[in-house]
Formats: sequence, structure tokens, C-alpha cells
Amino acid sequence: MEADKIGALPGQPNGVDFNHYSGYVTVDSKAGRALFYYFAESPDKSSTKPLVLWLNGGPGCSSLIGAMMELGPFRINNDGKTLFRNDYAWNNVANVIFLESPAGVGFSYSNTSSDYHHIGDKSTAKDAYTFLVNWLERFPQYKTRDFYITGESYAGHYVPQLAYTILLNNKNANQTLINLKGIAVGNGWIDDRTGYLGRYDYLWTHALNSDETNKGIHAYCHHFNDKDPNECDDFQSKSYVEQGDIDGYNIYAPLCPLDFSSSIKNSNDSVNSFDPCSDYYMISYLNRPEVQTALHAGVAKWHKCSYSIFGWTDSPASILPIFKNLMATGLRVWLYSGDVDSVVPITSTRYAINELKLPLKTAWRAWSTDNQVGGYVEEYEGLTLVTVRDAGHLVPSYQPARSLTMISSFLLGLLPPP
Amino acid sequence: MEADKIGALPGQPNGVDFNHYSGYVTVDSKAGRALFYYFAESPDKSSTKPLVLWLNGGPGCSSLIGAMMELGPFRINNDGKTLFRNDYAWNNVANVIFLESPAGVGFSYSNTSSDYHHIGDKSTAKDAYTFLVNWLERFPQYKTRDFYITGESYAGHYVPQLAYTILLNNKNANQTLINLKGIAVGNGWIDDRTGYLGRYDYLWTHALNSDETNKGIHAYCHHFNDKDPNECDDFQSKSYVEQGDIDGYNIYAPLCPLDFSSSIKNSNDSVNSFDPCSDYYMISYLNRPEVQTALHAGVAKWHKCSYSIFGWTDSPASILPIFKNLMATGLRVWLYSGDVDSVVPITSTRYAINELKLPLKTAWRAWSTDNQVGGYVEEYEGLTLVTVRDAGHLVPSYQPARSLTMISSFLLGLLPPP
Repeated sequence: MEADKIGALPGQPNGVDFNHYSGYVTVDSKAGRALFYYFAESPDKSSTKPLVLWLNGGPGCSSLIGAMMELGPFRINNDGKTLFRNDYAWNNVANVIFLESPAGVGFSYSNTSSDYHHIGDKSTAKDAYTFLVNWLERFPQYKTRDFYITGESYAGHYVPQLAYTILLNNKNANQTLINLKGIAVGNGWIDDRTGYLGRYDYLWTHALNSDETNKGIHAYCHHFNDKDPNECDDFQSKSYVEQGDIDGYNIYAPLCPLDFSSSIKNSNDSVNSFDPCSDYYMISYLNRPEVQTALHAGVAKWHKCSYSIFGWTDSPASILPIFKNLMATGLRVWLYSGDVDSVVPITSTRYAINELKLPLKTAWRAWSTDNQVGGYVEEYEGLTLVTVRDAGHLVPSYQPARSLTMISSFLLGLLPPP
Repeated sequence: MEADKIGALPGQPNGVDFNHYSGYVTVDSKAGRALFYYFAESPDKSSTKPLVLWLNGGPGCSSLIGAMMELGPFRINNDGKTLFRNDYAWNNVANVIFLESPAGVGFSYSNTSSDYHHIGDKSTAKDAYTFLVNWLERFPQYKTRDFYITGESYAGHYVPQLAYTILLNNKNANQTLINLKGIAVGNGWIDDRTGYLGRYDYLWTHALNSDETNKGIHAYCHHFNDKDPNECDDFQSKSYVEQGDIDGYNIYAPLCPLDFSSSIKNSNDSVNSFDPCSDYYMISYLNRPEVQTALHAGVAKWHKCSYSIFGWTDSPASILPIFKNLMATGLRVWLYSGDVDSVVPITSTRYAINELKLPLKTAWRAWSTDNQVGGYVEEYEGLTLVTVRDAGHLVPSYQPARSLTMISSFLLGLLPPP
């Protein structure tokens, strides 16, 4: 634990009032497979606050995206060298682990290169579980702490699969090995058919696609896999071309200009103004040797999304059966969604929930933060849907205050305030 | 003409390089009915540029909204006293008349109070036509100039009706009294049934309404008038409640805080950052006695939307037949739409166009300005649809640069640049 403690991150602002740690946890010593994590404790009364695991998606994308661009305690200035504080970091209300998963992603690695070619949902969940068990040996004060798993995008697979693995192991061991209380998935990819259908309907209803293309999708795409006729592919390609060169992850955001290093306007160092070039600041920062040293990371080229892992051996077409299993155990299950994301849009999430045919518990209503509507909430038996207004795929990037209200409510087991 | 010339508007910035005029044009001397206008010439080569009439909607809302918050040469600072330049004002490419219409709206008035109670589409079009003819006598150099009518919202009625009146009078007179070349309507209310249907579908697909409410609307609302059962009303009320306290005219914009005068953040005096409190600055500015004097307006309480006019005697359920007539004459007809407006949303405009069953001429594609997608365009035979990305109901308020690109293309008779 102390060996993993971070002295100071290069360029961090003054007055850092919380402990943070990072390093490797071996998940397979024979293969030489180790996962990298960054852990930010809460500044205030951390021992009373829950433990939260955050997972980015992809598959193959690093959870340091979550740490450095979304919900972590710091964001990176446009110099790519210095940090500023995120006032709405989730470690205000929890102790947060960011896990780079699976091996081959970010700083996580395997010494057995074949590991990068035989990778999929199952092995990812298994390694993440092994990581957690070993991590808790290193941080034993968290062993009995309330534990939650959160994540976004393809973590719509990772989060419920890991939750299921934990519950199974707790059951097999006949004791609570990990005190899992709930999961929250943001803009999660959880069901292929409704996912794609929701995406194309979103593009059409948000005036990014023509009527003709939407008609074509509905006429020819039924399964959104290779059972569909070739016309389905054609209309999917048309859909892509028609939307033009926009950021599908936030359909109203500007793109980072090509000559951003010279021309980008001041990022204001403010967490409230999203900078479309932040990707580049993060890539620059995490590849600085002094940053990698401070993080106890192996010196390596850090990529946002992995170029090392190839193919993906298993990815069920629907995770809804796992959701059903989890809900049956009484686990707290939230699906949240930024409403200006076209990649895994709110329509996809709503269509997927409709597949579950759940009884309604609390009817659709607005919720608020800072006297503005933060989004909407609808509570079903066993599952809660929360939207975050004017947020893209990476919800806390675009709406940090709203996302903190949302996750605080989740951790308290309350609906977000009206 | 010279009598209407504005010396200087109170609080105007230095370096105003165009002529502007305002005053009254009598449309019925017997009744004492006069319409107020503000006219901004183009700074550069105004004699080579077309004449454009702008109309706001309501019915009953002032076109000074267009002048002071949207496409006019100035916007109002948050002191309610001083002005800053709108770099993307439409008088960069045209000479623009803002007409307060009908009498009873803004500074326009009638000495016959019954005029305020017998008012509707027909009388509005008639008076606007009379205004134009008389105005051209005052500004004879514009008599043969290419003329365009633009406007938004309920001007979806005003604009085509006035265009039709002009063409009819030209025909009856057997000569070109007014050299009308085209019309452009923004987020226009043009057909009641598709208008309402599009609104409710927009609310649902933009995650502002529940599935249950959208199902109810589709089950019970067929005509969106009193032929529908009471259940339709109930679901419409539910739809309203469910969206909560947001600005329906720009669903992602913040609301002006209640204590805005003390707490509102700096508006940056920038036309690029929309200030949700600009309404208040405008009301404050236009009610300053020195401003009314400079504008040659009768000293009166200026309201954004009229409290003087009551009822509305005629308003056809659909203006599509008039659009068909206009298109048949070869007039340039554009419908443009900001895509984050829920009041007259892009879905309503698309549904209305679909009613016309027009052959496609140029397939849906993105257009751009400043190297960013500005929106999308689809050209039909006789009618062009243009969306403006991330713009609310008052398109030029939210996206001044994109709206200038759009209207420039319209005036040139070109599709916006790819």
C-alpha cells in the first residue's frame, strides 16, 4: 500500500488534500500478467465512504480516461503538463479505483504475448475479479467497505459481468468476499439489437440522418448482425456518411481543430467548459516520463485505446440476461445516460430496458442540480434509469456537476433530487 | 427617409459604419393604424445588396426580438443600457427591415381599439403588404431591389401569406410592384397536425418525455384539435409536466436565474456566448425613454409579446397549400430549423415537408462553416430544408455564424457549403 502511494503528480496544483495511489496488481504470475490501477481516496472522512471501481469501455480503452478527463480528482491543462482540480470529482463522495483492464490496455500488460490474442469478456471479468481480491489484500481496510462498480460504454458488458462474478464467488465461498452493493452503467452497450436500432433512430430523430436512410435501416436491418441482407450494410454506411464530420460522442460539441496546438482557445482551466482537444492533453501528459515514474507505471507508450489487443473472443449479443440475474439478487442497478451521445444513445438504453418489461415504480420526472434540470429519472422495479441533460458519451466530462449529483444519489440509494 | 434616420442608438459602440432608420408607416389613416419598423442597411455596398424583411412570430411577438437578440447589427449588454456589435448580423449581406406586426405589437399601434380585437392572419398580411408599398415610397431606391421575406415560428404563417399577397398584387397589377425572389422560414409553424405530432415525438426522442406519455399521445391524439378525445388533452398535459422546468426553445440551454441581476455571470459581451437572461436586457433597453426617442418610437411600454391584442380571428390549420402555390410560381422557398428547439422542432418541419411528397433533388448532406458541421441540407424540387446544428428556436441567437452562412447561401441561391 505505502509503496503504491503517489508523492505528487507532476504539475499538480497546490493543496492536494487526499491520498492517491497507483501501481500494478498481478493477476497471473505465471503468465506475468498485471493490471494497472489509479486509486483516489476521498479528502474528507474517507473511512466512512464507499469504495467505487470505475471501468471505461472500448473494449480496449483505458480507465485513465475516466481518471483524467471525466470523474477523477484532476483534469489536464492544455499545456499537457499541469493539472487543475475537478471540483466535481467523484472522490468527493467515494474512494475511487480506476482499473486499466484487460491486460494490454494502457499501462496494464502481460509478459505472455498470446494473452493479447485470446481475450474477451470472460477473461476480462476473471482478471478484474482477481485484481480486486488481490487489491483488497493490499488495502485491507476496504475489505468490508460497501462496494460499487461503475463504468461506461462497453463497460455495459464489463460491469454486470464483474458484478455477477463477484456474487457467484461470494455464494460459492458462502461468505461476503467483496461487499458489492450496486452497479451504475453510463451510456452502456448492453444489447446489440436494441443498441444499433436505438443508435439509428437517434441519428434520425436528431436530424443527423435522412428519412430515406432511416426507412432503409428499418426495412433491411432486423438483427444488426450477418443475418441481415447486404442492403442493411449499405444503409448503415449511408447513415455514417450523412452525419458528416461531427463528434458522435457529443453531437453538438465542436471538433478539436487540426492545428489545435497553436489555435485552440484558452481552455479556461475550468472543469465547466469542455475542451474538445482534451484527448491530446491526456495523451501528452501520460506519456511524460516523470508522470509515468510518479504513477509507478512501467515506462511505456500509453494509448487511450489499445493497439496491442487483437480480436475479441467472446462478447454476448445481449447482457440483459445477466442484468435480470443481478436484479433478482436485489442489487442496486442504475443505467444512466448522457442525452447528446449518438454512439450509445439514450434511445438504445430505453429500448433495452423495454425488453425487460419491468413494472414502473416511480414515473418519469425531472431531477435538478444548481436550480437547473439535470436530467430525468424513471424508476422501474429493480432498475433505475437516469438521464443527464446535455451530456455526451463521457458524461462527467461534459456535465461534471450533474454527474456528481447523479452518482451521489446512486451511492445513497436515493433518486436524484427533484 | 431622412426623418427616420437614427442619429445614434444610446449606448451604441464606436465605429458604426452603416445607416439605420426607424419609425412609423401608416397602414390605415382612417383607423389611425401604423406599423413600426427598424431598418439596418448594409455597411458595405448596400446598393448592391438585396432587401430582406424579417418577421418574428407569436402571434403577437415583436420583430425587435430579431433585431436586438438575433440577427440585428447590435446585441444588448447585461447592463440593459449599452450595445455591442453582432459580427454575424444579417445586414452584412443584406439590407434588413424588422417590422413590428400587426398593430398592437411592440411600438406598432392603432387609434381604433377594436383593431386589437379583430385581428388575424388575413388582416396581418394585408397590413404588412400596405406597409411595404408605403415604405418603398419612402425608400424608393429599394423599389426594384431583389426582395426576400424571412422570419421564424408563427411567421411560418406570416411569411408565406405575405409572399402570396405580394405575388397576387403583382399579378393583378400586371407588373412587379414588389420584386419578391424568395422566402426563408425558421422553425416555422406551418401545419397544426404535423406540428404537434412532431413536437411530441421530439420530446420523446430527446428523452424529455416518458414512453407511456408518447404512447398515450399516439393513441389518443389524431387531429390535435377538439375532435380528439379528452385523453389527448390529459397526455398533452403530462408531456408538459414531465419535461420539467427547462427552456423548450433550447432544450439544453440554462434558464436565467431568478436573481439574475446580481448573480448572472458576465455575458462576455460576446455574440458567441448565448446569455439566457438577454430577454431582460432587451426589455430594459427598449423601455428606456432615450432609446425610444432615438428610435422615433411613440413613448410606450414595450413588450416582447403583446398584451394588447386579443384572440386571433383566423389561422388556417395548414399553410401547406399556400406553400404549394408559392412553389408553383418558382419562388425560392427554404425552411430552416435549429435542431435543439422543442417548440417548433425539426421533426415538425420534416413531417410537414413529408406531407408535400416532393421529389428529392439533392440528398441529405452536412454543410459547414468555420470547419465545423453547421447543420444539414436536403433539397427537394421546389423547397430546401436546412438544419442549423445546436441552434434553438431563435436560430441566430444561439448560432450567429452558422445562421449567417445559411442566410448568405439562401440569398445567393446556393446550398450552404459542404
